[in-house]
Amino acid sequence: MTFRAPLKDLAFSLSAVTGIERLYQSPAFPDFDADILDAVLEAAGDLASDILAPLNRVGDAEGAQLENGQVIVASGFKDAVAAFADGGWSGLGADPAHGGQGLPKALEMAAYEMFHAANMAFALYPTLSQGAIEALNHHGTDRQKALYLPKLVAGEWSGTMNLTEPQAGSDLALLTTQAVPDGDGYRITGQKIFITWGDHETRDNILHLVLARLPDAPAGTRGISLFLCPKYLVGEDGTLGARNSAHCVGLEHKLGIHASPTCVMAFEGAYAELVGAPHQGLMAMFTMMNAARLAVGIQGVGIAERAYQQALAYALERKQGKSILTGEAKAPIFNHPDVRLMLGLSKAKIEAARGICLLTAIAADEQRLGEDDGRLKRREDFLVPIAKAWSTDIGVEVASSGVQVHGGMGFIEETGAAQHYRDARIAPIYEGTNGIQAGDLVGRKLGDDGTAAFELIRDIESFIKNNRFPEGFYTSLRALAAGLSAFEDATQWLIKQKPTAPGDVAAGATAYLKLAGDVIGGYVLLKGAMAAQTRIDAGDGDAAWLKGRIGLWQLYAAHVLPHADAHLTSIRSGVAVLDGLTPEAL
Amino acid sequence: MTFRAPLKDLAFSLSAVTGIERLYQSPAFPDFDADILDAVLEAAGDLASDILAPLNRVGDAEGAQLENGQVIVASGFKDAVAAFADGGWSGLGADPAHGGQGLPKALEMAAYEMFHAANMAFALYPTLSQGAIEALNHHGTDRQKALYLPKLVAGEWSGTMNLTEPQAGSDLALLTTQAVPDGDGYRITGQKIFITWGDHETRDNILHLVLARLPDAPAGTRGISLFLCPKYLVGEDGTLGARNSAHCVGLEHKLGIHASPTCVMAFEGAYAELVGAPHQGLMAMFTMMNAARLAVGIQGVGIAERAYQQALAYALERKQGKSILTGEAKAPIFNHPDVRLMLGLSKAKIEAARGICLLTAIAADEQRLGEDDGRLKRREDFLVPIAKAWSTDIGVEVASSGVQVHGGMGFIEETGAAQHYRDARIAPIYEGTNGIQAGDLVGRKLGDDGTAAFELIRDIESFIKNNRFPEGFYTSLRALAAGLSAFEDATQWLIKQKPTAPGDVAAGATAYLKLAGDVIGGYVLLKGAMAAQTRIDAGDGDAAWLKGRIGLWQLYAAHVLPHADAHLTSIRSGVAVLDGLTPEAL
Repeated sequence: MTFRAPLKDLAFSLSAVTGIERLYQSPAFPDFDADILDAVLEAAGDLASDILAPLNRVGDAEGAQLENGQVIVASGFKDAVAAFADGGWSGLGADPAHGGQGLPKALEMAAYEMFHAANMAFALYPTLSQGAIEALNHHGTDRQKALYLPKLVAGEWSGTMNLTEPQAGSDLALLTTQAVPDGDGYRITGQKIFITWGDHETRDNILHLVLARLPDAPAGTRGISLFLCPKYLVGEDGTLGARNSAHCVGLEHKLGIHASPTCVMAFEGAYAELVGAPHQGLMAMFTMMNAARLAVGIQGVGIAERAYQQALAYALERKQGKSILTGEAKAPIFNHPDVRLMLGLSKAKIEAARGICLLTAIAADEQRLGEDDGRLKRREDFLVPIAKAWSTDIGVEVASSGVQVHGGMGFIEETGAAQHYRDARIAPIYEGTNGIQAGDLVGRKLGDDGTAAFELIRDIESFIKNNRFPEGFYTSLRALAAGLSAFEDATQWLIKQKPTAPGDVAAGATAYLKLAGDVIGGYVLLKGAMAAQTRIDAGDGDAAWLKGRIGLWQLYAAHVLPHADAHLTSIRSGVAVLDGLTPEAL
Repeated sequence: MTFRAPLKDLAFSLSAVTGIERLYQSPAFPDFDADILDAVLEAAGDLASDILAPLNRVGDAEGAQLENGQVIVASGFKDAVAAFADGGWSGLGADPAHGGQGLPKALEMAAYEMFHAANMAFALYPTLSQGAIEALNHHGTDRQKALYLPKLVAGEWSGTMNLTEPQAGSDLALLTTQAVPDGDGYRITGQKIFITWGDHETRDNILHLVLARLPDAPAGTRGISLFLCPKYLVGEDGTLGARNSAHCVGLEHKLGIHASPTCVMAFEGAYAELVGAPHQGLMAMFTMMNAARLAVGIQGVGIAERAYQQALAYALERKQGKSILTGEAKAPIFNHPDVRLMLGLSKAKIEAARGICLLTAIAADEQRLGEDDGRLKRREDFLVPIAKAWSTDIGVEVASSGVQVHGGMGFIEETGAAQHYRDARIAPIYEGTNGIQAGDLVGRKLGDDGTAAFELIRDIESFIKNNRFPEGFYTSLRALAAGLSAFEDATQWLIKQKPTAPGDVAAGATAYLKLAGDVIGGYVLLKGAMAAQTRIDAGDGDAAWLKGRIGLWQLYAAHVLPHADAHLTSIRSGVAVLDGLTPEAL
C-alpha cells in the first residue's frame, strides 16, 4: 500500500510537543519560520511518498549485489540518490558555510522520519553521509572542511562510518586495523564489517571515515584514531584521481534492509588522512554519537509509522465477524475492540516515540540559541539513549503488531507487512545495542548526581501542576503522576547504588530506560492532548482528529503508564536475581 | 548451531509441574511408566537433533517449490518424512485400535516441542496429520476409521485441514466452497488458501479434510459440513485409484517456515465423503480445536527454546567488554548483567509456557482416567487459549531477544537467529489469532460464571497455603499472591461486565489473557522451584541446575509478576478508552 506522509502529525508534534516556534527567526535560525517549516515538511513528504516509497518493495526483493567487485544497487536507487541530492536534502541541517541550509535538527528529524518510513534501506544512505559531515565539521582541518564538506553537503559524494571489526563490535577497544604514516598521509590496513552503504557507484566518490590504530598507539580505546580514506584519491583542487585500495569484498545476507549494501570492507594499505588529533578517534566518534543515535531512534519511529499505516488501512478494509462496537454483521476488523486497541496503542506509542526524538533534537537546536547554562546539553545527552532504544523497541513492537493485524496475510511477503517486521529488527542493534544505550543511560547520563534526570522530572511535574486540565484528563493525570514518582524513585535508588553496588545499576538499566521512556512518552502525549484541547476550545482545526490526540493520551495512560511501578520493582530487585543463573544452571 | 534436546527440562516439567507419574500404569495408560517416558523422550530427542535439526537451515533456504503442478519439498525432507513415519511418531498418542501407541498427550506434546524446536516447518507436517486423525476418530464412520485411520496413524498417508478461503479467515461463516451430492459421495468445488502441507509427493496419498456447504445449507456457520477428499481415490480395499481433482495451484511466499508448503488448493468437482452429520462441520472442527490450538502453543515453546539455546551459546562464546559480575577485562557477554537478564527471562518464560502447555495436556489425559466431574474438561478448555496465545507470544518475544543477544550477527541470515524470528511470527496468527484466543477466553471460557477460572485460582492459592517454603521464596511468593489477587479481581470484573457491557469484556480480553498467563506461569515456576528445593534438600540430582529452577522462579517473580496490577488497571479501563479513536481521529 502507498505511504501517506504524516504531515499533520509531524507539524502537530513539532508545535505542541517541542514548541519549535521558539526557533523562528532566532539568531541561530534567521531564515526559519512557519512557512519554511511547512514547505520543508511538504517537500520531504512528496519525496518520501513519490520517489522513495515506491522503491521499498523492489529494493527488498532485489537487494544489493556484489558483481566483479562492484556493488550493484537495486533498480531505481541510483536515480533516487540523485533526486535526493538534487533536492538539497543532504544538507538540510548542515552549515550554510558549506552549502547547507542550516535548518533545525528537529525539522531535519521530522523529514528523515518520513524518508525512513518510506524506504529505510534507502534512507540509511544519507544518514551515514550526515555522520561523515558531522565528523569533518567538528574535527576536520580548514583544508579538509573546504575540500570535502561541500561535496558531502551537496550529496555529490557520500560518506561511510567504518568502526566494527569481527572481534570488535560493542567493544571498540579490541579493534586492530592499522594506520602507518606515509609521507603527508597514512596507509590503512585492516578489515571492517557491517559497513552500511560501504560501497556503490551511485555517486562520484565515497569518503570512508575509519577508526584505526597508529603504530605508537596505546592499547584499548585510548589508542584509536580517526581517518578519512577516499574511494578515489582527491587532488587539492578537488579533482578525482586513482582508485584507492579500499574495497568491498563481501555483502551480508541480511534479515532486512536488503537494499542497503552492508559491506565487508578491506583496506589494503589504503591512503588516508588523519581527522582530529592522534589517538583521539573515539572522542571524535563520541561527538557524532548523539546525532547518530538519535538518527536511529527516528528510524524506529518511521518504520513504526509505516507499519501502522498499512495495518490501519487493512483493518478498515478487511471485513470479518460481527462488531460489538457497531453491531455490523460483517464488520471491518477495525471495529473489533481488540484490533482497534492494537492500532490505538501502536499509534499512541508512535506519537510518544516521535515526541521523545523531537524533544531530543530541539534540546540540541536550543543550545544554538546561546542561552544554555548546561541544562539543554544535559537534556539532550540524557534523552539520546532513550530516543534510540525506546523508539527502536517500539519500531519492532509496532511492526510485529502490524503483521498480527493482517492475520494470515501478514505472513505473506507480497503484503509488505513482513518487510517492516524484518527491517525494523536492525534498529535496536546498530549504533550501540539497546542494552548499550541502557548502560549509557544509568552510567554516564546518571552521572553528576542525576541532575539531568531530576531537571526533567521537575519539568514534567511543573507541567502537570501549572496547567488547568479538563476533568476528563484526571484519571490519566494520576497515572502519569504515579509513573513520574516511580521514575524519580528509580533514579534515586540507582544513584544510591552506584558507588557500592554497580551490579544493581547494570541489572536495572534496561527496565530503567523503559520506565523513563514510558513516562516521558506520557508527558509527550499529555502535551499533545492539552494542545489539542486548547485548539478544540478555540474552535481551531479538525475536531475529530484533535479529539484523537486526547484519546491516544488516555489510552496510553490506561495501558502503558500503569506498568511504571512494575518497572520500579524490577529495578529494585537488583542483580541478586541473577545469582543462581550460572551457565550450569541454564 | 546444533540443537540440544532439552530432555532434562522436559522430564522435570512433566514431573514437577504436571505430576505425570499419576498416569503410570493407570487403566487408560496401562503400558505407560517411567521407563517408557524416558525412552520416548530420548528417542524423540534423537530424531529432533540428528534428523530434523540439520534440515532446518536448508529448508529455509530452499523452501518448497511448485513445478508443473507438483510441490517439490526441500532437500532431505522426503527422507525425514519417512524416518518420522518409520519411528512410529505419527501415532504416538493415537488409539492402539488403529495402530497408535496410546501414550499421554502430555508426553506427545513434550516430543512435539522438540520436533518444532528442531524444525518447525517440518513438524507442521505430522501436526496437520494429527488433526485429520482426530477428526476421523471423533466423527468418522466405522468404515472411514477402518479404511483411513491406520494409514494416517502409521504415517503412510498424510492429512490436511482445509478451512480458510480468501474472504473467510477468522470468520468461517463467510465460506462459500460448495459440495453437491453425487452418487455415494459428493463433489466439492471451491478454493482454499493457507493450506499447510496441502500437497507434496513424500507419501502415497493425502487426505484433505475440507469445510464446505451443501446445496440446502443454511447461511452462516450452521451450514458448514466437513468432508474427506483424498488426493488419490481410495478403493474399499485400500488400493489407490485415480488422481482426484484437488490440486495445489499456488504456493505462498512467506516470511518464515519456508519448507512448509502453504498451498492454494483448488477443488474442481473433487470427489469427497461426508464426515459426521450434514451442517455439523463447524462442531467437528471445534472438537479438534483444543488439540490443534495446544499444538500451536507448543510450537511457540519449541521455537523459543531453539532461539534461546542459540543465543545462550553465542553469549557464552562471544567476548566483549569488561564484566561487572566477574571482573574479566574481555568477558563473555553472558557475564554482562543485561545480557544474562535477557537470557534468564527468556528461559523463565519458556519454562512457564512449557508448563502451561503441559498442564493443558495433562488435564486432557486425566479425563481419560474416568474420574472427571467436569472439572478437568473445564480446566483443559480454560487453559487452551492461554496455552496457544501466551506461548506463541513468548515464542516471538524470545526469538526477537535471541536476535538481540547476537548483536549485529543476529541480523545476518547465516547465523540462524533470524530464521527463528521469522518462523516464530506465524504462531500467534494461525489456528485462531491470539486476539481470537483472548476473545474465546473471556467469552466461552468465562461462561458458567467463571467456574474454571475460580477453580484454578483456588488451586494456586491452596498450593501457596499448603506448602512450607524456604524463606528465600517469600518475596517471590508475595508477588505471586498479588498477581493471583489481580487475576481474581479481573475475572470477577469481567464476569460482572458481561451481561451489560460486552464491549468492556472484548476490550479487556488480551490484557486478561496476558495476566492469566503471567500468573499461571508463575505458579508453574513455583511448582518447579519447590520440587527443585525438595530434591536439593534430599541431595538428589544436579544442585547447580536445580538452584537454577529456583533462580528462574525468583527472576520471573521480580520481572514478570509485578505487571499483574497494571494488566488489571488496563482491563478495568474498559472500552471507553477507545471512544475517541475513530478512523477520522487516527
